Amino acid sequence: MSNYKELSPSLRTIMTPGPVEVDPRVLRALSFPILGQFDPEFTSLMNETMAMLRELYMTDNEWCYPVDGTSRSGIEAVLVSLIQPGDKVLVPIYGRFGHLLVEISERCGAEVVFFETEWGTVFDPEEVIKAIHAHQPSLVAMVHGETSTGQMQPLAEIGKACRELDILLVVDAVATIGGTPVETDAWYLDAVMGGTQKCLSVPSGMAPLTYNSRVEKKLMSRKTVERGLRDATSARAEGRTIASNYFDLSQLQDYWSSARLNHHTEATSMLYGLHEGLRILLQEGLDARFQRHRINERALVAGIQGMGLKLYGDMSSKLPVVTCIEIPDGIDGESVRSMLLNDFSIEIASSFGPLKGTIWRIGTMGFSCQRKNVLHVLGALEAVLLRHRHTLPAGEAVQAALDVYAGKEGVLC
Amino acid sequence: MSNYKELSPSLRTIMTPGPVEVDPRVLRALSFPILGQFDPEFTSLMNETMAMLRELYMTDNEWCYPVDGTSRSGIEAVLVSLIQPGDKVLVPIYGRFGHLLVEISERCGAEVVFFETEWGTVFDPEEVIKAIHAHQPSLVAMVHGETSTGQMQPLAEIGKACRELDILLVVDAVATIGGTPVETDAWYLDAVMGGTQKCLSVPSGMAPLTYNSRVEKKLMSRKTVERGLRDATSARAEGRTIASNYFDLSQLQDYWSSARLNHHTEATSMLYGLHEGLRILLQEGLDARFQRHRINERALVAGIQGMGLKLYGDMSSKLPVVTCIEIPDGIDGESVRSMLLNDFSIEIASSFGPLKGTIWRIGTMGFSCQRKNVLHVLGALEAVLLRHRHTLPAGEAVQAALDVYAGKEGVLC
Repeated sequence: MSNYKELSPSLRTIMTPGPVEVDPRVLRALSFPILGQFDPEFTSLMNETMAMLRELYMTDNEWCYPVDGTSRSGIEAVLVSLIQPGDKVLVPIYGRFGHLLVEISERCGAEVVFFETEWGTVFDPEEVIKAIHAHQPSLVAMVHGETSTGQMQPLAEIGKACRELDILLVVDAVATIGGTPVETDAWYLDAVMGGTQKCLSVPSGMAPLTYNSRVEKKLMSRKTVERGLRDATSARAEGRTIASNYFDLSQLQDYWSSARLNHHTEATSMLYGLHEGLRILLQEGLDARFQRHRINERALVAGIQGMGLKLYGDMSSKLPVVTCIEIPDGIDGESVRSMLLNDFSIEIASSFGPLKGTIWRIGTMGFSCQRKNVLHVLGALEAVLLRHRHTLPAGEAVQAALDVYAGKEGVLC
Repeated sequence: MSNYKELSPSLRTIMTPGPVEVDPRVLRALSFPILGQFDPEFTSLMNETMAMLRELYMTDNEWCYPVDGTSRSGIEAVLVSLIQPGDKVLVPIYGRFGHLLVEISERCGAEVVFFETEWGTVFDPEEVIKAIHAHQPSLVAMVHGETSTGQMQPLAEIGKACRELDILLVVDAVATIGGTPVETDAWYLDAVMGGTQKCLSVPSGMAPLTYNSRVEKKLMSRKTVERGLRDATSARAEGRTIASNYFDLSQLQDYWSSARLNHHTEATSMLYGLHEGLRILLQEGLDARFQRHRINERALVAGIQGMGLKLYGDMSSKLPVVTCIEIPDGIDGESVRSMLLNDFSIEIASSFGPLKGTIWRIGTMGFSCQRKNVLHVLGALEAVLLRHRHTLPAGEAVQAALDVYAGKEGVLC
C-alpha cells in the first residue's frame, strides 16, 4: 500500500516570469479522456493547433507546431536541425538566455561568435548588424524577451539585415509569445521558438515553434527518414544528418504533415491544453491581449514606484511582461520571497548569475496578468517590506495602481 | 473571434500498444492548479515521484526521474549522455524499436554494430553474449519489449555478462514498465528508459528513467555546468561535453538533486499525472498489477484463438502486454480497423515496416487492461470480421475469454 498522500496543491498567486497560473479552461482541457495519436479526431486537433499557431506567430508559414518538451526543447530542436558542425553562429547576449543559445549552439558543434552588452540593456540594432557584416555567420540566434533582466530586443532591423545577407535569424520568443507582438513575417524572422508556460498560460511541457521555407530548405537537405520506417525511396541526407532524432525537425515535420509518418507519440493532454490555450487567446484577440498585458504592467510599475522601490534596467527597452525591481539595501530578498509565499501564497522570482540576490522579478503573464493579482502582489509586498522594517509610504502602492486602472494617468483602461 | 470548436473528444476504448486510456484519477490530477517549479510543495512532489519510481524500477538507484518529453526523449537522453563520438555500441535488433536504438546511437556519433534476428522472435541470450565478447563494445543497447512484433527479450543473462565485462547495458523498457517485471538491479541493467503512455496509463509526454552509479560516473566525467549559471568552481567536462543541453543527464541530475540547479521548467501538470499514476500503481501493488496484465492477456489470446485467428510470433517469448494477430487472407486490415473505430469507438493498431498490413496489434496495458475492454474488443472484432464476410465460429471468442476469467482453463482469476 502506498504511503504517498493524495495530490492537493495549494492555490498560489504566481507572479513569476513563468511558469504562471494556468487558465481554468486549460486545466479542464487537460482532464479530458485521451484519443489515440492517429485517431482522425486527434489529427484534426493537431491541424487546428497549427492553424491557431499561425495567427499567434503572425505568419503565413506552413510549419507551426509544438515540440514535445519544455521551452528549451524547441530552441534546441531548431538549433540542432540547422547547425552543422563547423557552422559559424553569431549570438548577441544581453542576459542568461543568450548564454543558453551559445551553450546549445556550441553543443551542436558550431563555431560560436558571441558578444555581450551590459545586463539591463539591449543592443542598438546597428551594433548587431555591424557584427553580422563583420563575422558573416550562417546563422544569428537572439533572445526576444530576456526574463533574466526584464529587457526586450527590437528585432525588425536585424531581421531585415539578415534577410538581405541571406543569413538565418532564429529567435527565442519564449517570454514574449502571447503577451506582446512577435511579428514573425514582418520582422523577417526565419524561425521563432515559443513556450507554453508563460504568456500562453498552459503548463510547461510543449514548445510551439514556427519556421519558414528558408529553414525548411535547409532541413530538407539534411533529411533522413528514420531507420525501421525507411524504404528504398526514402530521403537520405545530402548534407550531414541532424545529430538528434528527437529534435529532427525534418522528421517532426513529416509527423505533422498529412503523411503522418510515425515519430514520437504526441503528448495528447498537453496538446489539448495548448489547443485550448490558443482558443482562449484568439477569443480574447491578440490586440486586446497585448493591451491587457500593457495596462497591468503599467499598474504594477506605478505601484512599485509608488512604494518607493527602484526599477532595474533600461525602461526604454523594458520587457512588458516582466518587471525587475532592485532589492533595497539591507533587505534579504529571499526572506521577502519566502514570506510572500508562506503567508500570502504569492510567488515572485529572484534572478540568475550576476543578478542573483540583487533584483526581484515580477511577471505579468497570461492568466496571471490580471488586476486582482497586481493589486494583491503590491499589497502583500508592501506588508512584507514593512515587516522587514523597510521604510515606505504605506498605502501608496495599491492606490497608484488603482489610479492607473481608473485611467488617472492618461492611460485608457 | 475564434472559429475553433470547444474540445469534446469522443470516448474511445483504446486497445493499441499505446497510448492507452488514462486512469480517471490521473486525468483529475492533470486538472489541478499548478505550483511554481521551485515551490517547496512542488519539489517535494518531485522527490516523492523519484521514490515511487525506485519501487517501479525495482532498484536501489539514487537516480530515478523523468525527462520532459515523450518516451523516446528518455532513450535519447541516456544514449547522448553516455555515447562519445567513436564509441562502439552494440544493438541486437528484433523489431522496429531496435532500429530506433541504432538510429539514435548513430546520430550520437557511435560506431554501431548491429545484427537482427527474425521479427516475431527474440535472441537466445547466448547469441547476444557471444557477440558482446566478439565486438567488445563500450555499450549494449536493447529493447525489453518490442511493441512492433509483440516479443519480449530475456535480459538477466545478458546483464550479468555485460557487468562481468564492465560494459554498460541500457534498456528500452517503454512497453514493459508497469505491466510486467523490469528488474533493474537483479538483471544488472545500468540504465532503463520507460514511458508514461503505455502500462502506466498516464498521457504521453514524460520519460521516466533510472540509472546506476556506473552510469553516473560516466556522466560526471562529461559534466559541464550550463553557461550563464557556472562560476569558477563549476564542473567542466574532462571528456567531451555531452552533445545536447536538453538531454544532458548530468545537468538534469543537478536539477533533480537537492541543489535544484536551474535547467528547464519542469512540466508541472505532467508531473502531477505521473505522480498520481505511480500512486495508483503502488496502491494496486506491482505483483497484483502484473497478474492483472497476465490474466487479461490470457483471456484475449483465448478469445482470438476461439474465433479461429492465428497469433503472430513465437509464443514462448510473447510480450504479455501486446498480442499480435495475423490478418486473415482476403481481409483488408485497415478496413477492419476503421470499422472498429467508427462503429464501436475501439482502437487497435496495425504495425510497421515488413509487418505493415500483415498483422493487427492489440494492447492490454495499464488502465485499458481490464475485463470489459477485452470482452468488448473480442465481440466487436468478431462482428466486424463477419461484416467483412470472414468465416468464423460466431460467439466463441467472448465465451473463450469468459472461460479464462471463470478459471475454467486452469487459470486462477
